[in-house]
Amino acid sequence: MTPLNETHSIDLRSWVASANDGATDFPLQNLPFGIFRRRGSNESFRGGVAIGDQILDLASAVHRGVFNGLAQGAAVSASRERLNDFMAMGTSAWSALRLALSRALREGANERHALEACLVAQSAAEHALPATIGDYTDFYIGIHHATAVGRLFRPDTPLLPNYKWVPIGYHGRSSSVVVSGEPIYRPHGQSKGTADTPDFGPSKRLDYELELGFFVGPGNRRGAHIPIEDAESHLFGVALFNDWSARDIQPWEYQPLGPFLSKNFASTLSPWIVTFEALAPFRAYCRRAQGDPEPLPYLRSDENMARGSLDVQLEVLLQTEKMKHVGSQPVCLSRSSFVEAAYWTPSQLLTHHAAGGCNLNAGDLLGSGTLSGPHPSQAGSLIEKTIGGREAITLPSGESRIFLEDGDTVSLRAWCEREGAQRIGFGECVGTIRAAPFDTPGALHPAQTGHPHGD
Amino acid sequence: MTPLNETHSIDLRSWVASANDGATDFPLQNLPFGIFRRRGSNESFRGGVAIGDQILDLASAVHRGVFNGLAQGAAVSASRERLNDFMAMGTSAWSALRLALSRALREGANERHALEACLVAQSAAEHALPATIGDYTDFYIGIHHATAVGRLFRPDTPLLPNYKWVPIGYHGRSSSVVVSGEPIYRPHGQSKGTADTPDFGPSKRLDYELELGFFVGPGNRRGAHIPIEDAESHLFGVALFNDWSARDIQPWEYQPLGPFLSKNFASTLSPWIVTFEALAPFRAYCRRAQGDPEPLPYLRSDENMARGSLDVQLEVLLQTEKMKHVGSQPVCLSRSSFVEAAYWTPSQLLTHHAAGGCNLNAGDLLGSGTLSGPHPSQAGSLIEKTIGGREAITLPSGESRIFLEDGDTVSLRAWCEREGAQRIGFGECVGTIRAAPFDTPGALHPAQTGHPHGD
Repeated sequence: MTPLNETHSIDLRSWVASANDGATDFPLQNLPFGIFRRRGSNESFRGGVAIGDQILDLASAVHRGVFNGLAQGAAVSASRERLNDFMAMGTSAWSALRLALSRALREGANERHALEACLVAQSAAEHALPATIGDYTDFYIGIHHATAVGRLFRPDTPLLPNYKWVPIGYHGRSSSVVVSGEPIYRPHGQSKGTADTPDFGPSKRLDYELELGFFVGPGNRRGAHIPIEDAESHLFGVALFNDWSARDIQPWEYQPLGPFLSKNFASTLSPWIVTFEALAPFRAYCRRAQGDPEPLPYLRSDENMARGSLDVQLEVLLQTEKMKHVGSQPVCLSRSSFVEAAYWTPSQLLTHHAAGGCNLNAGDLLGSGTLSGPHPSQAGSLIEKTIGGREAITLPSGESRIFLEDGDTVSLRAWCEREGAQRIGFGECVGTIRAAPFDTPGALHPAQTGHPHGD
Repeated sequence: MTPLNETHSIDLRSWVASANDGATDFPLQNLPFGIFRRRGSNESFRGGVAIGDQILDLASAVHRGVFNGLAQGAAVSASRERLNDFMAMGTSAWSALRLALSRALREGANERHALEACLVAQSAAEHALPATIGDYTDFYIGIHHATAVGRLFRPDTPLLPNYKWVPIGYHGRSSSVVVSGEPIYRPHGQSKGTADTPDFGPSKRLDYELELGFFVGPGNRRGAHIPIEDAESHLFGVALFNDWSARDIQPWEYQPLGPFLSKNFASTLSPWIVTFEALAPFRAYCRRAQGDPEPLPYLRSDENMARGSLDVQLEVLLQTEKMKHVGSQPVCLSRSSFVEAAYWTPSQLLTHHAAGGCNLNAGDLLGSGTLSGPHPSQAGSLIEKTIGGREAITLPSGESRIFLEDGDTVSLRAWCEREGAQRIGFGECVGTIRAAPFDTPGALHPAQTGHPHGD
């Protein structure tokens, strides 16, 4: 794990004034990476670093000759249309570029003159996915989520016997991972009520899932293990992730091979990836309860138990169509934290994933699974918050919700704060529900394979 | 669906003499596509077409100006390092190139002189994956397999209630799909016996799965449906596919989200993709038993019911290390057929996949699931053939097998034959089991992320 260094000092101030505002997610100590261009332009998408309310355009910065040595090579890779090459470079390159950026963006830096021309306001930018995601895996490490959902089906034994031994995960759909802001079309699918025959139509139980996503850095060859002690050097950074789910499609389709149409219509990723190095001040002991088994040896190291987890605060906000019309701000639905929610650490997920012989590649995405705390106010999904859809939520607008309705906008947020360290944040992960873009089967148009209606 | 045309005539003969040998998988009526280069060379991988015991190098053929019009553009796309661009072009381009190839390779063709210099012997070639597989989905449409495996767990109700309504599928691991001939490393994983604590180590119940793989052609946008009537124009072709499985890892890990390490260590694909157009003479009625429900409207069309299935014969062969040493030929373990095994058609898989809103891309791979017939001699996996590992198979070499041992080579084969049509074949899909490349966790080397031992 990366030790603390000068880039983490709470005393650092940037010549980008907005980075020194205590409320920003992106102070000089953060320096997350993303892919952007000026909104509505025909520019190429390219790599950038968030600083205050600005983006440092890495392609421009490279062009101006601001970097040297290893940082220069790293900046060239990070300035491309996707971050995969940069992710593949590994910790030395990542650290060299972070240090160079930290020094060049500090108050009094000689690079200020050259870099001032490389800033783009975040409000004027649009984003693409930070990486080409070769494979996306979703885990299920939120033990309170697994318990709450399990209780709906099996009141006496909510957690299955494998839960505390195996980091449960499954392969998700990478083609439908989209960047924050892209519309989320209500999925169609089969659901089974009390009638003999299942129905096919738009989901009536559309839900969000509050997750973190971990990006793989250097991968491994097929058949080669990644020891737990080495795992974190294969992890580049962390983003917010919303794994939208159709709760009426899932129970009918998921036996025996797992979720399919109930999950593969869309997942939303935040634009900014916070590096593991930026998270160094916020590492935490991985919580275990009395009586929990020791992890098997391949998943166990002293350092991983002592500091393998992440002290990240999480929040879900909802704004309905009506709230937008009357100008009401989004309302907080729940708050939780990674360290309280997660039974396994990111390193354990990576090591387990490769332990069978599976090859991972730079840019692969590992979702955490829903991160709920133990209390209903900490539920990371509506199915938990409404106790399986039985108890509606009343909103300040006077509306109520059991599941999501068309026009609802869900935003995820996250941040880290700790005495003696500068607060850093993850930005936002946003999606708005749109009506299913095609009608029930009788009304399908044969050629309807282009862009859906209303977009 | 493509109608019969002159390229299917049983009377066609090629100036490539080996294509006229009745035993070849690759007569002039087949013309499957793959990616190859001369074995051991530093040449670029490029597209080729199998003809008899030769490969027509499409890059060379394009260079010699053999093609015109739409066929010329199609040949340029098909000559690249991967077939994705060609797959994305759609049926008109595929058909134009097939017709041009059929005419240019016929006895008496003027193109003979130019094309003779573009042939590479299959025995001198090596292959890469035919496409970059963005996402790989595995279905479970072998109803006799689902019944036989289900019976091991639930003797009274082997098939789950959703089976005859939902084409059951799940997302697999695309990074570990490899081309025929690549070594298969015995996976590690957790398994749970009667002890309180699970074990971690090399799988003791390694199995094959006899499948077909369907490659997606033109895709769809997120949220856009693909009507069943239109589905086959989105399917490029068919390959052999072996979805290796660890039967001791799977039962412990797969609840509630499906298989993970038990499947993601490797899947083997044959080098050649037989196009749906080549399969036109071998279309078949999709079998249903008395009392089976009608498919829901979005999965139903008259043409799909009448001709949606494929009359493809399938075979699994095994050759042990000992058999190789004494020069014994591979022994046939089982024979089945797609039309007898499959409850759903390829079009139904594609339409269902996109029905929720999931976007598919050219080069995506849809596995059929294990294709077993109703009799034990038709089992597409060892877990079925050995009745859950209880009844060993005796081989002609005097050896016995319950599951696969190191050094075992498994080959899948397939072909189509019908009165009045030329027999066509799929080539081979081969993999040999190698010892797990790393030892139990205590013996792991921290830097062991390079190429595994013994390769």
